[in-house]
Amino acid sequence: MFSNSKPIQDLLALSAELTHLEGAAEVLAWDQETYMPPKGGSTRAFQLSTLSGIYHEKLTQGKVGLLLQKAKKAAKTSHDKALVRRLEKEYQKATKLPKALVKEITEMQSRATQSWRKAKEKSDFSLFEKDLEKLLSLQLKAAKLLQKKSQTLYDVFLDDFEPDMTETEVQKIFDHLKPKLVALAAKLTKTTRDAPKILEGKTFPIAGQKEFGQEVMKRMGFDFEAGRQDLSAHPFTCYFGSVGDVRITTHEDEKDFQNPLFATVHESGHALYYQGNHQSLIHSHVYGSASLGMSESQSRFWENTIARSLPFWQYHYPLFQAHFPDQVGMVSLSDFVKAVNTVRPSFIRTEADEVTYGLHIILRFDIERELLSGKIKVKDLPKAWNAKMSSMLGINPGSDREGVLQDIHWSHGSFGYFPTYLLGNLIAAQLWFTLKKEMPTAEKDIAAGKLLPIRHWLKEKIHQQGKLYTTPELVKKVTGEPLNPDYFIKYLEEKFAALYSQ
Amino acid sequence: MFSNSKPIQDLLALSAELTHLEGAAEVLAWDQETYMPPKGGSTRAFQLSTLSGIYHEKLTQGKVGLLLQKAKKAAKTSHDKALVRRLEKEYQKATKLPKALVKEITEMQSRATQSWRKAKEKSDFSLFEKDLEKLLSLQLKAAKLLQKKSQTLYDVFLDDFEPDMTETEVQKIFDHLKPKLVALAAKLTKTTRDAPKILEGKTFPIAGQKEFGQEVMKRMGFDFEAGRQDLSAHPFTCYFGSVGDVRITTHEDEKDFQNPLFATVHESGHALYYQGNHQSLIHSHVYGSASLGMSESQSRFWENTIARSLPFWQYHYPLFQAHFPDQVGMVSLSDFVKAVNTVRPSFIRTEADEVTYGLHIILRFDIERELLSGKIKVKDLPKAWNAKMSSMLGINPGSDREGVLQDIHWSHGSFGYFPTYLLGNLIAAQLWFTLKKEMPTAEKDIAAGKLLPIRHWLKEKIHQQGKLYTTPELVKKVTGEPLNPDYFIKYLEEKFAALYSQ
Repeated sequence: MFSNSKPIQDLLALSAELTHLEGAAEVLAWDQETYMPPKGGSTRAFQLSTLSGIYHEKLTQGKVGLLLQKAKKAAKTSHDKALVRRLEKEYQKATKLPKALVKEITEMQSRATQSWRKAKEKSDFSLFEKDLEKLLSLQLKAAKLLQKKSQTLYDVFLDDFEPDMTETEVQKIFDHLKPKLVALAAKLTKTTRDAPKILEGKTFPIAGQKEFGQEVMKRMGFDFEAGRQDLSAHPFTCYFGSVGDVRITTHEDEKDFQNPLFATVHESGHALYYQGNHQSLIHSHVYGSASLGMSESQSRFWENTIARSLPFWQYHYPLFQAHFPDQVGMVSLSDFVKAVNTVRPSFIRTEADEVTYGLHIILRFDIERELLSGKIKVKDLPKAWNAKMSSMLGINPGSDREGVLQDIHWSHGSFGYFPTYLLGNLIAAQLWFTLKKEMPTAEKDIAAGKLLPIRHWLKEKIHQQGKLYTTPELVKKVTGEPLNPDYFIKYLEEKFAALYSQ
Repeated sequence: MFSNSKPIQDLLALSAELTHLEGAAEVLAWDQETYMPPKGGSTRAFQLSTLSGIYHEKLTQGKVGLLLQKAKKAAKTSHDKALVRRLEKEYQKATKLPKALVKEITEMQSRATQSWRKAKEKSDFSLFEKDLEKLLSLQLKAAKLLQKKSQTLYDVFLDDFEPDMTETEVQKIFDHLKPKLVALAAKLTKTTRDAPKILEGKTFPIAGQKEFGQEVMKRMGFDFEAGRQDLSAHPFTCYFGSVGDVRITTHEDEKDFQNPLFATVHESGHALYYQGNHQSLIHSHVYGSASLGMSESQSRFWENTIARSLPFWQYHYPLFQAHFPDQVGMVSLSDFVKAVNTVRPSFIRTEADEVTYGLHIILRFDIERELLSGKIKVKDLPKAWNAKMSSMLGINPGSDREGVLQDIHWSHGSFGYFPTYLLGNLIAAQLWFTLKKEMPTAEKDIAAGKLLPIRHWLKEKIHQQGKLYTTPELVKKVTGEPLNPDYFIKYLEEKFAALYSQ
């Protein structure tokens, strides 16, 4: 719990005010993606920049430095310490960067995102190149101002997304993983090549998809009294500083139930984290997830480890068949589960299977490092991208749209974001082996449709902790060892071996 | 347009920041009434009070007084002058009241609203009495601090809702109206008593109601690219400081299409005002409606003058019948229009017909004045209410719920709000006669389903002006004379005479 001392309570009051400002901005952002009418956009941009301007004002006002110093001395509990640590970091970043540079970056982000959209539409990287160059040079300028002696430049970028890991640590893990994933992808592509094509060309009416999805959400423990599900172009999860209101979105596709369903489970995995924080953390900078990677571990865990598993479908397949008797009534469980678990090199990250997905990330991580260190230039990106795709996945994108232009992240200047996706997979696998050890009935429970015991385990071990611990601390605390990528390989090997030996 | 001088542009920048803060709060409030999950309420309250606290901070910061002085001197255009006038008023109110008193009032409002809910549920005024007494005494304290020499106490309250009218002016109008309305209500109750009961006991499926309602909205010119319609317990209109996003809500009732339909048209009438402001006014304190009464004139105009008229249904009734062939396929147009235009004294204001509605308002105005002047005490309210109902409408509420407890307004401390509803009716009638004079084809257009010419007239005369003029100024400007309640009586007499002479 937080101490009752004045310095801690003062800092907590500031944290609450900032959290409510951010929460308000999140509501506006959610509305923008879900219900806002088209002509509302320009005013909404002003509202959001007004709120973020005030957030910055409040965070950097004169008294905050002193407040932090006093609180640091008074910090006793792990709540206190985490609060000081998280706020101090934010304060330092906010005060180290000149306002003019922040403004320049914000404007350039917006311009680069627009030119990225156009470039992607026309599949022509050259339309994006100049803006990306400018954005990158501004981001590098900012990174150099923030850089600590112990940090590489990449570390500074990574710090925004995975604050307690370094380039070196990630590189070590990814270097270890790369050859294993390449080999596994090649092997499993062969193994799964003959999986029956029983889902192709079929139509799954939206109403049934929605009902089935919400049944799964309920079984996972998503609290509809403390959250909602809505529609948006790209699925996301959002929260407003408290366990009482956590929302996910999904998209609809009659031609493909897989994408919407697994996205629903994925976002619900994030949402359980935010609904599951301890009540004492709400309205503070200690509410939330330890890092993006840790949050991604929850979404990937539910999406892949649970919802693409045989035990999951042992219980759920008859329910699914009841919703879609014409489409899958005559398809066997085994054929169905194989159909949702095939491995095949493909161009688009968001459509990749569990195995090749990791290679998509490592490719981006490698390129980002070379870009930040100056080894390659922005103009070389398409060539570098295609060469790596070819060497790692054995395929060659026919166009920029299917290659270097597919993701929005760099147009936001978000270098260092991608690794968190793969880290999430790795943590998920490591948690899975710990869970099976501590709860030997886990797979039986899943096969009986009982997902709540697993949710409770995750809640107790991870969700309740909010941002009290760093991700490396939490991984160690929960699994008894540091992050170990071999669990991921082991998980994939065991899973596909079992599925395809049947 | 706004002048380009620095003092005006500086004030405009403050106005924009305040508008965006208020707009953000409005989005949060909209969400609260439409989509927010139940457990989101407590955090939402914190977010809203954070935003209103910051609004108050920004409005009352040291430099604002000087900013206003300079802008006042520099004000040249009607835009400039209106901006200074609206902001200066808000500034004075915000700075004259001690923060502690404002906080006390806010807390008491919340408590009084809760006890009002309980009291209404149990139909027992005594459960509300003490809190209302406390709230009233705090509000009186504040009013005395704000009161100018020329103002009565009631004027101070009225100023929050109908800022450019006085108690004396309203009283003169209502006193003139009261005997005429009493007589007209008695007469028309008899005239309409035998209207065929062709709607009672029928069910109108929601989907058809919604489609029909949206067809009418489109014909009125509601821009769905710049607005939405959603569901909430009580219908309302909201906007966020710009013409690009104006939303209405409605409620659903299978057993009664009238309430949802006329509420939809009513709220759309408000919405057209906010969608129709001149683009130069957005993001400033001059965007919006001249007053609550003027806004209500637009909603009532569309709801009553248009959508309850014979010409409206001459065009729309066949469409309505197509949606509900089983319910009204065999009912004649004449019988249908009579059924939606009957007069009968009733207890509940929001369910009252066009004629008795005014008496519900005059009753509240009379009681509020007696309460504020100390002629009656809070504890006497139920008795005073019932006596007036009896003398004005000839009926006696059987319970507090059907009497003094029916409205939420007093529990918010909103004394002086009710008159704006009736003023809206009066302005609507006066506009109607002006419109018919300037656009002789108006009734023919309505009967041909052409509502846009009327919308354009209202937009040009009223909506475009935003808050540039006061309501009395605007009434005079548009109709050529000051507010004259006789138009309302004339409108009612002519309408019912025509309908019931058939």
